[in-house]
Amino acid sequence: MKLNYPDGRVFHNNRPSKPSLNTSAKKKLIFGDRGMTLEEEINESNKYYRSHDMAVIYKKPTPIQIVKVDYPKRSKAVIKEAYFRQASTTDYNGVYNGYYVDFEAKETKNKNTFPLKNFHQHQIDHLRMCQKQGGICFVIIKYVTLKRYFVMPADDLFVHWDAQKHDGAKSIQLKDIVDCSIEIKANYDPTLPYIDAIQQLIESGKEK
Amino acid sequence: MKLNYPDGRVFHNNRPSKPSLNTSAKKKLIFGDRGMTLEEEINESNKYYRSHDMAVIYKKPTPIQIVKVDYPKRSKAVIKEAYFRQASTTDYNGVYNGYYVDFEAKETKNKNTFPLKNFHQHQIDHLRMCQKQGGICFVIIKYVTLKRYFVMPADDLFVHWDAQKHDGAKSIQLKDIVDCSIEIKANYDPTLPYIDAIQQLIESGKEK
Repeated sequence: MKLNYPDGRVFHNNRPSKPSLNTSAKKKLIFGDRGMTLEEEINESNKYYRSHDMAVIYKKPTPIQIVKVDYPKRSKAVIKEAYFRQASTTDYNGVYNGYYVDFEAKETKNKNTFPLKNFHQHQIDHLRMCQKQGGICFVIIKYVTLKRYFVMPADDLFVHWDAQKHDGAKSIQLKDIVDCSIEIKANYDPTLPYIDAIQQLIESGKEK
Repeated sequence: MKLNYPDGRVFHNNRPSKPSLNTSAKKKLIFGDRGMTLEEEINESNKYYRSHDMAVIYKKPTPIQIVKVDYPKRSKAVIKEAYFRQASTTDYNGVYNGYYVDFEAKETKNKNTFPLKNFHQHQIDHLRMCQKQGGICFVIIKYVTLKRYFVMPADDLFVHWDAQKHDGAKSIQLKDIVDCSIEIKANYDPTLPYIDAIQQLIESGKEK
């Protein structure tokens, strides 16, 4: 079954469990791109980073407004009526080496432009506030068709977001993303080594 | 309606909306203790801290396993079957002045001992991991009957948690909490000024 979140993300809840494989076969399978969503790739990477004491970063649960719950006898509580709520924040946050890390992840099937409508005002506002408090803020953009991944600093996202009002541009060009972002390569252990990009952001921040 | 979360917290979803009051009446009402839960007091404080650019800290949504969703025509999606999931983390995290902040909040009606069963192993594990990454980690404890609030550093919680195995102590004595914690007073603007305690924790950490 597939569920569509109000913001257009797709939620898979009965994806078949992974086949049991030995480690090298598993690595090959992951490395060979088994068609994970960006969210799955980041969740896998976060597991790797936690298990290696490198960072503690989680995806936040989807906020739900609960209206009705049943408490069947000898069985666990069942939510019978609930609604998706609009989130106030981005999806991911955590701590890396003393730094607060906050980001949003978005994917597109486009081969060139990245539509700004993928972002919501509350995500931009939240990233701005976290950045003001000294957090390391960015977005991870995946070009699904191109199989390219970019870590784009929040500052550069803000420039494009704000420019919409003046120039009416509804999207960011790939070449602009390439110019301002750190490109990362999908891999195994971790699936998506985005901490390397965070480290670069921190170092470039220190040079300023 | 009241909902009981699996971990014993109580969820109020149809609490009457606050009466519209002018600011001084509102302050008096809040200051005069209108019986907010600790969660409500922290959420109010977080709103204050965000609106004053002092910190960006949120309570995480309760994790839910969604099984069935209806998409009625001309109406928003309704979740028809879902279950409470065990959280992997603590309830609160965010950023304050460049620091990653992570904590759990617990209240007791006891007047002396604080039962350790209020905490779960996954919360202790998560606090340890965040602390290792340089986060500021603690718990906020509210003695409801005594109207006393304590910010207890995670390190001290770990000592009591680990001691259980050896001395079998199932709770922490109030005097021990007083000894190792920073006491904060309920107030207005913010309702619970726990950032003051975080600042003290940071300063005492620097002295070491």
